[in-house]
Formats: sequence, structure tokens, C-alpha cells
Amino acid sequence: MQNFVFSAPTQIIFGRGTEAQVGEVSKQRLGNKVLLHYGQSSIIKSGLKERICSSLAEAGVEVVELGGVLPNPRLNLVQEGIKLARDHRISGILAVGGGSVIDSAKAIAMGVKYHGDVWDFYTGKTVAEGALPLGVVLTIPGSGSEAGGGTVLTNEDGHLKRLAWSAHVIPQFAIMNPELTVTLPAYQTAVGGADIMAHVIERYFTNVTDVDVTDRLCEAILSTMILYLPVALEKPEDYAARAEIMWAGTLAHNGLLDTGRVGDWACHAIEHELSGLYDVPHGAGLAVLLPGWMRFVMQQDGQRFEQFAQRVWQVETAEEGIEKLSEFFKRLNLPSRLSELDIDDSRFLELAQKCTGNGQFTVGNFVELDTDDILNILEMVK
Amino acid sequence: MQNFVFSAPTQIIFGRGTEAQVGEVSKQRLGNKVLLHYGQSSIIKSGLKERICSSLAEAGVEVVELGGVLPNPRLNLVQEGIKLARDHRISGILAVGGGSVIDSAKAIAMGVKYHGDVWDFYTGKTVAEGALPLGVVLTIPGSGSEAGGGTVLTNEDGHLKRLAWSAHVIPQFAIMNPELTVTLPAYQTAVGGADIMAHVIERYFTNVTDVDVTDRLCEAILSTMILYLPVALEKPEDYAARAEIMWAGTLAHNGLLDTGRVGDWACHAIEHELSGLYDVPHGAGLAVLLPGWMRFVMQQDGQRFEQFAQRVWQVETAEEGIEKLSEFFKRLNLPSRLSELDIDDSRFLELAQKCTGNGQFTVGNFVELDTDDILNILEMVK
Repeated sequence: MQNFVFSAPTQIIFGRGTEAQVGEVSKQRLGNKVLLHYGQSSIIKSGLKERICSSLAEAGVEVVELGGVLPNPRLNLVQEGIKLARDHRISGILAVGGGSVIDSAKAIAMGVKYHGDVWDFYTGKTVAEGALPLGVVLTIPGSGSEAGGGTVLTNEDGHLKRLAWSAHVIPQFAIMNPELTVTLPAYQTAVGGADIMAHVIERYFTNVTDVDVTDRLCEAILSTMILYLPVALEKPEDYAARAEIMWAGTLAHNGLLDTGRVGDWACHAIEHELSGLYDVPHGAGLAVLLPGWMRFVMQQDGQRFEQFAQRVWQVETAEEGIEKLSEFFKRLNLPSRLSELDIDDSRFLELAQKCTGNGQFTVGNFVELDTDDILNILEMVK
Repeated sequence: MQNFVFSAPTQIIFGRGTEAQVGEVSKQRLGNKVLLHYGQSSIIKSGLKERICSSLAEAGVEVVELGGVLPNPRLNLVQEGIKLARDHRISGILAVGGGSVIDSAKAIAMGVKYHGDVWDFYTGKTVAEGALPLGVVLTIPGSGSEAGGGTVLTNEDGHLKRLAWSAHVIPQFAIMNPELTVTLPAYQTAVGGADIMAHVIERYFTNVTDVDVTDRLCEAILSTMILYLPVALEKPEDYAARAEIMWAGTLAHNGLLDTGRVGDWACHAIEHELSGLYDVPHGAGLAVLLPGWMRFVMQQDGQRFEQFAQRVWQVETAEEGIEKLSEFFKRLNLPSRLSELDIDDSRFLELAQKCTGNGQFTVGNFVELDTDDILNILEMVK
């Protein structure tokens, strides 16, 4: 087990009807004037936006609105948000939506306090020294962004999708009502689920030894997802299944499963390039990449892959474990080939080179992948 | 799954050599003048106290000392600490030790900000409205007090051992170096381990349904303890085993395993009366009570007891699961009968009546125990 630092400061307010608390908690944690940031029209149609605005109004919190966040959120909307927040002297940001909205809100929160280009955080040119406080009403489980400091943004110039991390943008609170997720379309439930499982699997495969307690926590989260994702697809209104998935999604990515170990993250890195170039849903890209990556790297630690097979899937061999994961994703109607996402091999080299900065660095920690390795994996799942 | 609120704000600084950071982190989180609170001479003999004082001095943090905390910490030392902290205008409290020291420090932290009798927090007469900030250097895994808001104190008048809880005393930070625990005597390792397992088991047996993710997290922590406690007893200097136990101990009691469910806590309540009357180690009392309690309540939810048997112990029936736990405690050289703790049946009635306030209330949530039920359990394990 490696040395680590851990805290999970986000106040999780979880359960039925909890969005009614948004006014009071926003007033306490975000101040008197919030930027309400959201995505498409779904929260308007469902009446959620109206309920949130009423609660904010009752608590005496003034609201400035910025909707329109797209999946794989874009830099240009963030820049608009930063200007808006400055012009209106916003005291905090309330993100209502899934990972894309939260990540866009995080970018705005950091950008307001920075006088350069907000994209600098995503290129590694600088790190945030502060941010506006941020709160979340989560409507799509998956990204885990509701309780972490990560934010992924797409710069339309060059189709670059990049990650930044700052403790300053860990949300102050996350209101999580599983009832809000029962209307999620099956495909969105499945891609969110694949993202959650990927967050665990990326951490599970590590070269750090003596990490038994976190291994078992990882297995607990995976087992829960394996049990409840099919239920949520079959019976979308099953509160219990939605609740298990939603809470598992946060625990998969709030830092708990990092404690004492080093994650791999190669699949996330490759998928970010895929989504940057082709604008595919993150979880769908991950569902394609993960089994291919696993087959490519399994020789690194056969025992760990067997443990995964046995404890998570109740099968014997490493190969059977990977096959079980692959079958599970198919059962969720997720793609298993890039071709199913309308991605052919014409830009594989460009994609692999983007991942490694034209060979300047490798990707992944469990196995360090170079450009050729990534090409190999892409060929395996094309 | 029930609605819940959760956060785990304590900054955990975990791993080899981490106590060297105590000066810097105390300065940031506790201020310029700390009360160094500790127990017996072990931290002096081991040189830990000197290392901590050097680190504090280097960071420019002034120190006032108060040692002498006993297992089952006493009200009179707390009162001395409150006076000392006020006289010296202490800015924060640094607890170096295990649960007793931390709980005593929490009492002082609340007491300094309260003008009545600090015992009022423990009788439920009032709740803390503030507290001095608190930090921990943990030397004995077990209580989980390093990352929670609970504090248990013994009032020598009437041999009363009582619990108080306040978010104000959740430690700001907890420095956790497993190396500091390799010198723990076997018995102390075992009673701490039993306390950790009890924290999980008390939460595991719940009547709340649809709590699969937290069930599995509970099983993860228990499986880790079952694997590593015997290793730590056999090879006290095994860092990996000590690290697994130490981290599992925090996760068992930082609120994570409460999310969405209601714990039982009857065994803790009964054990507090035992420790209050007889001054036995908390974990030893729990090791005796738990299997008896389980046999007494198993009819309440046979399926849950079977799940416990199968997932945690890899045996089939509820009865076999309880027997496995009982055997495990014996293997750790923990007592399985009250007689082994020199407790006879002469004060059983007094004890049971103390638990229920002379029949005014019941104890436990999974099954609500009255005075007769408690007497029954005590007879089963006498």
C-alpha cells in the first residue's frame, strides 16, 4: 500500500425529494447569486428546473441562467459562462445535470478567478489558485464529477478533449435524488454505467501490492453495478436499482478507491481522444476499449486478472473474466466494436499519436502504452 | 435505501513517516498553540512524542501538554484539560493515541466553548454549538474516532459511560502511520480489531432493504479484517497487515457504511454499561457480546444472517456464520465469556436496567431489546 492523502468533503444529500433543499443549501454554500448551469431542455420539460428555481427564490437566492451544455462540453460555452459570471458578480455556480454540465461548471468556476485563458488549466500550463464555490443537482449518474475535482473539456479547435484537476472545484454539495434518474433513456443509463465500471476497473488494475481492502471495495462497487444495471434497463422506474447505481457511481470516483494505489487510466486517455475526434459518448467509447485493453495487458499480472474473474464474475480464468465483462456490456446494448460507433481505422494513427504526444510520453500506469500499443488495441476493437 | 447525508471531511494523511508532517498541518489547521493530549508513557518511550514536539517546534507551534488519558477516558481529566486550554488560550487540540485519547480530546474541544458542565453533552442535556479544532496522530486502530464525530466518556460518579456526537469535533486531520502500530501488544491489536469488526457488524444488521452497495462495502471491510488480523498477531511487524487494518478501521466508522441504512448499536450500548461498571476493554466486551446478541436476534432476518455467513465466512447457514465469528475471536485470544473478564452475574440486572433507563426505552434498532432481552443475552454469554 502506498502513502496517500484522502478526504471526501462534498456534502452528499441523497434520496427522494432532496432537490427541495437546493435553495437553503445553495444560500449557505454558494451565496446570494448563483449561475444556474444546465444542458438541454430535459430539465425544463421534466419540471425540475422550475422546482429548483422556486426553491432558490424562496431562499432568496438570485439566479442567472446558462443552459446549452452539450455532451462532451465545449470551451466556447465555458467562456460565455465566465463572462456572464463576471458581469453579474455571481457568488457561486449551481450545476444541474450530469458530468458534462458539472465539468463545464467547474471550468467556469476556475475561469472566473483566472485572468488568462481557461484552457490553460487543461493544457497543464497553470493550475487553479481558486474558484467560485460549486454545487450540484445530479441527474445522470456516471461521471462521478459530483464529488471530485476533475473536469474534462473539449476545445473545438483541434478537437482536443482534455482533463484538469483542482481541489478548488470539488463541489461543496451534491444533491442526488435517484427519482430524477428514472426517466433516463436506456442508452444513457448504460453509458453512464459503463463509465462507472470503467472508473473502478481503471483503479483495480495496479502494480501496487498489498491493496486488499481497496481491491475488495472495488469489487463491491462492480458487483453492485453488475446486479443493478440490468434491473434499471428492464424496469427503469425501479427506485432501488437507480439508488444503488447512483451511490455506486459517486463512490467509484470520489477518491476512496484510489487510496493507497495507483490507477491505470489508459482507457480514459484513449477514449478522450476518441470523443474529441468523433464526439461519441464517453461511456460507449469506454465499453469498446476496456475489454480490448484488458486482453492486451493481461500478461502483466495474470493473478490479478484471475482475482477479477473469480471475485467479480465468479468464473475461473482471466480470459473468462474479460469475456464476462464484454458480454455484460453487450447485454446492456453497448457497442463492442468501434465500427458500431461509426469509427473506421482511417484516423487510428492520428488518434494514437495524439494520446502519446507524438511519442513523447506513454499512456497508462499498469502497463505503459506507446503509440504502437495503442494502435494494436484500436485494431483489436475496430 | 433510506435518504442520507454524508461527507468525510477529515484529511487522512496515511502511510510511512507521515507523522513528520504534523507540525505543518497543525499550524494550518489548529493554529499557533496546541494542547498535546496523550495517554500513558508509551509515546514517550517510543520517541514518538519527541518527534512530534520537534515537528511542532519547527513549524512554530507552541505546545501545552496534557497526558494521562486512561482507557475508557474519564471526565475529571477532561475538566482539567478544559481549564488548561482556557488558561493557556489554546487554539486547537492535537490528540496522539487511540480512541480514548481522541474521545477525551473531543470532550475538551467542546467543553472549552461551553460554559456549563461538559458532561451535559453526554447526558443529552445540550449539543455542542462549536469546538476548538482537533487533529489526530493515530497510534491504535479500533475506535474509528479519528474520522468521526463521536466521543465516549466515563463519569466516575455512578460509573456511567456515555456517548456524545457532534460534527464540530470531527477531526480536521488524522495522521495515520501503520509503522506506529507494529509495537502494539497482541491483545491491544485484537481488541481494536474486534471493535472495528463490531462497527461493521452493528451496521450490517439492519431492517432497511435495498442496501446492497453498503452491504458489500461492509463485507469488504470484514473480509479484510478476517484476512489480516491473524497476520498482525503472528507477524506484528508486517506493514501490509497493519496498513490494511488501520485503513479498514477508519472506513468502518467514518459514516460511509451508514449511508442509506440504520445500524443496530445494541451491543455497543450494552458494552458501554459493561465498561462503565467493570472498566474492561471495549473491544473485549464486544467480542463477548456480539455472538450472543447474534444468536438472540437471528430469527429477525434469517436471510440476512445467511448472507453474512455465505459472503463473509464462506459457510452456508446463519448458525455457522455466527460460529465462525465466535471461533475467529477465540483465535485472536479474545474472551468469549463474561467470566473470562472476571464479570459474574451479580450485577446483570443493574446493568440491563442501566441500558434501558429502568425500562424507559429499548436498545437496538434491528431488534428492540428490553431489560429482559438484555438479561437473556448476558446469561447466554456469562
